[in-house]
Amino acid sequence: MARMVGTPGQAFRVRRDVTTAMALAQRLQQVRHHTLELIAPLESEDLCLQGMADASPPKWHLGHTTWFFETFVLKPALAAGQITGFEPAPEAWSYLFNSYYDAVGARHPRPERGLLSRPPIAAVLAWRQRVDAALQQLLSRPDACGPSAEQLSLLELGLQHEQQHQELLLMDLLDGFSRNPLEPVYDAAPEARFASAWRQPSAGSGHEPRWLSHPGGLVEIGHPGAAAGFHFDNEAPRHRVWLEPFAIAERLVSNGDFAAFIADGGYRRPELWMSEGWAAVQQRGWQAPRYWRGSDAFSLAGRQQRDGEAPVRHLSWFEADAYARWAGARLPSEAEWELLADQLPQAFGVLWQWTASPYRPYPGFAPAAGAVGEYNGKFMSSQMVLRGSCHLTPAGHERRTYRNFYGPACRWMASGVRLARDSQQQASP
Amino acid sequence: MARMVGTPGQAFRVRRDVTTAMALAQRLQQVRHHTLELIAPLESEDLCLQGMADASPPKWHLGHTTWFFETFVLKPALAAGQITGFEPAPEAWSYLFNSYYDAVGARHPRPERGLLSRPPIAAVLAWRQRVDAALQQLLSRPDACGPSAEQLSLLELGLQHEQQHQELLLMDLLDGFSRNPLEPVYDAAPEARFASAWRQPSAGSGHEPRWLSHPGGLVEIGHPGAAAGFHFDNEAPRHRVWLEPFAIAERLVSNGDFAAFIADGGYRRPELWMSEGWAAVQQRGWQAPRYWRGSDAFSLAGRQQRDGEAPVRHLSWFEADAYARWAGARLPSEAEWELLADQLPQAFGVLWQWTASPYRPYPGFAPAAGAVGEYNGKFMSSQMVLRGSCHLTPAGHERRTYRNFYGPACRWMASGVRLARDSQQQASP
Amino acid sequence: MARMVGTPGQAFRVRRDVTTAMALAQRLQQVRHHTLELIAPLESEDLCLQGMADASPPKWHLGHTTWFFETFVLKPALAAGQITGFEPAPEAWSYLFNSYYDAVGARHPRPERGLLSRPPIAAVLAWRQRVDAALQQLLSRPDACGPSAEQLSLLELGLQHEQQHQELLLMDLLDGFSRNPLEPVYDAAPEARFASAWRQPSAGSGHEPRWLSHPGGLVEIGHPGAAAGFHFDNEAPRHRVWLEPFAIAERLVSNGDFAAFIADGGYRRPELWMSEGWAAVQQRGWQAPRYWRGSDAFSLAGRQQRDGEAPVRHLSWFEADAYARWAGARLPSEAEWELLADQLPQAFGVLWQWTASPYRPYPGFAPAAGAVGEYNGKFMSSQMVLRGSCHLTPAGHERRTYRNFYGPACRWMASGVRLARDSQQQASP
Amino acid sequence: MARMVGTPGQAFRVRRDVTTAMALAQRLQQVRHHTLELIAPLESEDLCLQGMADASPPKWHLGHTTWFFETFVLKPALAAGQITGFEPAPEAWSYLFNSYYDAVGARHPRPERGLLSRPPIAAVLAWRQRVDAALQQLLSRPDACGPSAEQLSLLELGLQHEQQHQELLLMDLLDGFSRNPLEPVYDAAPEARFASAWRQPSAGSGHEPRWLSHPGGLVEIGHPGAAAGFHFDNEAPRHRVWLEPFAIAERLVSNGDFAAFIADGGYRRPELWMSEGWAAVQQRGWQAPRYWRGSDAFSLAGRQQRDGEAPVRHLSWFEADAYARWAGARLPSEAEWELLADQLPQAFGVLWQWTASPYRPYPGFAPAAGAVGEYNGKFMSSQMVLRGSCHLTPAGHERRTYRNFYGPACRWMASGVRLARDSQQQASP
Repeated sequence: MARMVGTPGQAFRVRRDVTTAMALAQRLQQVRHHTLELIAPLESEDLCLQGMADASPPKWHLGHTTWFFETFVLKPALAAGQITGFEPAPEAWSYLFNSYYDAVGARHPRPERGLLSRPPIAAVLAWRQRVDAALQQLLSRPDACGPSAEQLSLLELGLQHEQQHQELLLMDLLDGFSRNPLEPVYDAAPEARFASAWRQPSAGSGHEPRWLSHPGGLVEIGHPGAAAGFHFDNEAPRHRVWLEPFAIAERLVSNGDFAAFIADGGYRRPELWMSEGWAAVQQRGWQAPRYWRGSDAFSLAGRQQRDGEAPVRHLSWFEADAYARWAGARLPSEAEWELLADQLPQAFGVLWQWTASPYRPYPGFAPAAGAVGEYNGKFMSSQMVLRGSCHLTPAGHERRTYRNFYGPACRWMASGVRLARDSQQQASP
Repeated sequence: MARMVGTPGQAFRVRRDVTTAMALAQRLQQVRHHTLELIAPLESEDLCLQGMADASPPKWHLGHTTWFFETFVLKPALAAGQITGFEPAPEAWSYLFNSYYDAVGARHPRPERGLLSRPPIAAVLAWRQRVDAALQQLLSRPDACGPSAEQLSLLELGLQHEQQHQELLLMDLLDGFSRNPLEPVYDAAPEARFASAWRQPSAGSGHEPRWLSHPGGLVEIGHPGAAAGFHFDNEAPRHRVWLEPFAIAERLVSNGDFAAFIADGGYRRPELWMSEGWAAVQQRGWQAPRYWRGSDAFSLAGRQQRDGEAPVRHLSWFEADAYARWAGARLPSEAEWELLADQLPQAFGVLWQWTASPYRPYPGFAPAAGAVGEYNGKFMSSQMVLRGSCHLTPAGHERRTYRNFYGPACRWMASGVRLARDSQQQASP
Repeated sequence: MARMVGTPGQAFRVRRDVTTAMALAQRLQQVRHHTLELIAPLESEDLCLQGMADASPPKWHLGHTTWFFETFVLKPALAAGQITGFEPAPEAWSYLFNSYYDAVGARHPRPERGLLSRPPIAAVLAWRQRVDAALQQLLSRPDACGPSAEQLSLLELGLQHEQQHQELLLMDLLDGFSRNPLEPVYDAAPEARFASAWRQPSAGSGHEPRWLSHPGGLVEIGHPGAAAGFHFDNEAPRHRVWLEPFAIAERLVSNGDFAAFIADGGYRRPELWMSEGWAAVQQRGWQAPRYWRGSDAFSLAGRQQRDGEAPVRHLSWFEADAYARWAGARLPSEAEWELLADQLPQAFGVLWQWTASPYRPYPGFAPAAGAVGEYNGKFMSSQMVLRGSCHLTPAGHERRTYRNFYGPACRWMASGVRLARDSQQQASP
Repeated sequence: MARMVGTPGQAFRVRRDVTTAMALAQRLQQVRHHTLELIAPLESEDLCLQGMADASPPKWHLGHTTWFFETFVLKPALAAGQITGFEPAPEAWSYLFNSYYDAVGARHPRPERGLLSRPPIAAVLAWRQRVDAALQQLLSRPDACGPSAEQLSLLELGLQHEQQHQELLLMDLLDGFSRNPLEPVYDAAPEARFASAWRQPSAGSGHEPRWLSHPGGLVEIGHPGAAAGFHFDNEAPRHRVWLEPFAIAERLVSNGDFAAFIADGGYRRPELWMSEGWAAVQQRGWQAPRYWRGSDAFSLAGRQQRDGEAPVRHLSWFEADAYARWAGARLPSEAEWELLADQLPQAFGVLWQWTASPYRPYPGFAPAAGAVGEYNGKFMSSQMVLRGSCHLTPAGHERRTYRNFYGPACRWMASGVRLARDSQQQASP
């Protein structure tokens, strides 16, 4: 549930030159502006909406991403005399907008973020502007006191971090809106992106999926390192894995597929479930994916009829796992997924895809030092890896080696299911 | 915790004449307008703030009071052709803004009222205006199709109901703000009212309270009936009670008094507490009244230094009871309080005063028929009676026979303590 | 839920003479022996059975009653040299067998009493014998160092206390056995007592109950004091109460009566219930009295067919109150009950009868000093009074002024319902 | 928390011949008898002791293991006419003693096993004897109607299953006794076994552990199949894994080692913990391994002084993981452990050793068909693997490929810690 924030680590270092700084300044402006675009369709009262303890209100996301830049980049820069005139937020705000960095200090309890009606949005937006201006001031400084390689790396990290929160903001909002009997509409755009993403390139939805085979063997996965661009440290180091022959489905499981599972008693047959998952089914009364409502589904576009051919979404890992067992298949390991990701339709931009892999460190993984990297590996227990990206993921944020993760009972993120199976045959040529 | 709503009952009937209707129209306008004044100091995000399950957000209070008029007065009036052109709220709103009237239909879960970011405040305010206009339309109709006596009674009830929610809105807001580390300020006015109310007429604060004695005997309490003005049905019928000689303190227990209790180990000595209260002390970690913070206290005016001479407030019944035991006294019964209320300083406008009396029906009490009165007596278990009124109570809403009530562990309302004791002597002549 | 233990208080003092001591010695022997008879039908494993946090295992009841005598009588007597050769229990046992006397020291958590497989029963029984012998030693001492009046009073109290626990032991056991799918049988005797008790003298079961009327007025209730025999201090002082005219049913509500309530939707109609009771119905899924099973009922005699004419039992106060409302009646106040108890069939020995009265101190009530009386009034919140006695109450333990009490949601004690109603007429001559 | 029960699966089949049957009959007699020896030191009341929901009372273990044989072997054999005169337990017992086999029917709620004071132990023991006799009858039948290969496999499985429960019985009992302030003693034997097991062959306790290195590479783990003897199906299939070079400690972490971790603030430094583990530390107030008490430790031999050189035990995975991080090391993967198990001191008979590996199926794993194998893989989420065996494990039950598993917060089993680390060097020759 807690969200990952990677660190530059040892593998990733932004080169320190003017071109890099200028490019970063431009991307920063775009990313920060995009966050504001995301809240444009909201009513004022929506800004504090927190549907559950795992989610955060929109205003909190705005504050937290800003706090990240202020804490890790601007305050040190101010102390070092690299920037001037920057007025940080009141001291107490640090307590409010820290997410889980223990080294930075105590923090406000997560389940009570929705109670932070103050500071008002106007004050938060003014702070965002001050921070943006100070970041641009730092980046535009061409002299020796300009941003260090370390600072450029932290800025890149802050940018990636804000992109993560852009996705979180939308999925948290969907959770919050889903609890309102009025079934509010946020905006039609995300659904339109989803529809166009899953439809092309088609992988034969509505029929038995085609399978892409691989002969297995000793393969390499993980991010190749700095030269290949930004990555979070949980993606490294690149390492060898032995795989048995396998095949992986070329499309995601559809609403229609999943409806057949339900019709076949899927939610009433304990033999299909992990023991822990079956307990969740009983206790939470699961009978369908989270946002199914009759023959409709709830989304950021409000309540709409469900498309049987569209990929099923908002499933827990337990449901994905049970479905795969019912279908005579299994979930892919993250290594299998990564190996064939470039050849798989619907790998990116549609739905995050549950894997069979618990979220654990790669061999040789070492968390970075300092507060930013303080806890990068601290979520590596009792969670499962998802791969790919979804229609809420900001453009350019996806990556073949990206490791997303959630607890196996979570359902509020845009998760989907891709099947895999053991294969006796060699891969097709 | 749930709030009382009385009904006209059999005892109370508004006379049906033009003067009554005009006076009601004017009071209605004032009361409805006052609710809007109460939210003027708020930020938009405050409108959905719900600090705990027992409290409700400001916007909900606005909607609920409006729903009351629409449901019990306007919809029947519209159906009867008494008013025209009135556009009720969408059907779904009835589900959102019903508080606990089972006969009217299902309702939204109370603990999730803070999740109702929609409908937006603008829509709620527009609805309020439509309702106000329709009420005035009904009241201004002079002909035979004008408001019936029953309708006038319901309007009076709706007005009293809205006044109750004005007080609730403020105490709920205080609860919500108290959970924000920024310690927000609502407005200075309520604290000013409190200060001027408890200071006059002085009852010798800072010293041992003076005691007002009464010889007891067979006395009468309860509301005398319709001729004496509006009352909630839990105040009736007037009935006889036998009292032993007693004395009652002329002032409320002060912060200084209570600090002495704490200094004497009051929160650490189980022998002073009801068993259930001692469990509450342990489980909730009580060490002082709810809003004490160091030598300060939190209020709607933010955090301010505590005045030792001011009445102590925001105490549970358990704390009031334990204090009284420590002080060698006891709480007054509601009959004792009512009997001497007119002679007691600080009886009204300062703090509600806990009594020793469980909230139970008076002998001969009969709840009114129909949805409005559906459940008037349904809160008559496991709660204790408070008497008087407080600085948040709207002017004119207090009454000597008024029976307020809360669970014995509640602390978020403006409660205080007045002591009583048995008396051997006859009352002074 | 916690059980009352009264103290001799000021009103009650046993006279100090040899006759009194001898009579007490004899009764003590009988009462202590009766406890052992109660566990005779049990299997060894039953001795630690604790079905829920509110109940205690049989072995614990044996230990606790013994601890009471050791702590309040024998240890002081040993210290004073009144007895010799007495070997108290190991120090640690005091922690295990203290129920709620804070002044005596810390105590083992109530919900974990079932985990006390040690000390084994043999050790507890040996301790009982040592304590009994020492008590007889004290009581048989004729000289000036014999038992003081205070000690005789404590012995009488310990005896009454043990009788209370004899009833508790059986109702706790019924709760524990009720959770075993094998539906164990304890013994047929209690059911036989119940059957013979409710059948005579008959009050016309199976028909509309006859009503006994009383004109009301200024009456006296409460125990008249020491000369009239033992009483717990919550029964005193005797005091005046004003009553309006009323009538009270001559028989208890029967299973058949209650079945009609259920058939009429009693458990599905919120308008019949206290708000708090309705919440209990929802949360706990109540659909019938606690031990109803189909057309049978579970009792200490195992599962047996339900007799429609027998009084309904194991009801919460909420169910009793809802039934009374449905029947167009109400529960009697404890004053009403006490006033007519001697004329009412089925007043004693059948079922405890819920009253409309919250359990609160009588006017002028003062708890006794010292550890024994430490907390006598500490249960006087959020509980309701029951009057009479039941078929599990040891012979001779019942009393017209006896005030039993439980929380309004409790159902595991032998509770029943007697109706009352307001009466305009004067009492029949 | 729920316990694994493997199935013969496809890999394991007992050969069907007289020698096999006779050998099995003899081992069965020994194993069944050993269970009775385990309860010999108990008091009657201990037989129902259930300290927490995860644990089961001794009597339940006796019943459940017997139920297993009756359900999966004897009832089919009776139906097939292979045995005669066998009287099964009453039907209702099946409900009581089923653990988690959904295909066999509903079952009694696990947390309430301690409430089953009935059936009494005498009845359970008589049933055990009937079952043992019937098993011997079946096994001694030499003709064509003797036990089938399938039945022999199920008998072997039942035997292994009973051995698992022998260990569970002791660790559950330790949990139960640990909650009794009297600190009961079970027996000295298990502690004696522990002491002699960890002391030899010595791996240099009290000093920096020696490290055993391995160059990694493509290795094989998992059980080789039927010819190599019995195994649970989660140990198969044998498969290839790629390992990087690593080293593994030759001894377990000692009490002294762990005391240094505590002294260094181990339980107060969030940076050492998984986020989920840190939450457990806070919520449960962990400050030391489960059974540490001052400078003593509680065990089945009661409270005794802690030996600093002895391996630390009763640690959660979170504590093991945090300790490893503090020590600059990590936990071994299960493949690393298995690869070197035969060369490691203290691998078996001392303490189960936490690994870094989540409990997931091996590549190609397929659960067996039918009720026995129904749920073999259903615990493969949110649990971590432990390897080796402990001093409570019955002799002959341990195996190099054995996969034990518990949730990462569990502490009541005999778990310990062995460190590992990455290694650049090649293995020592």
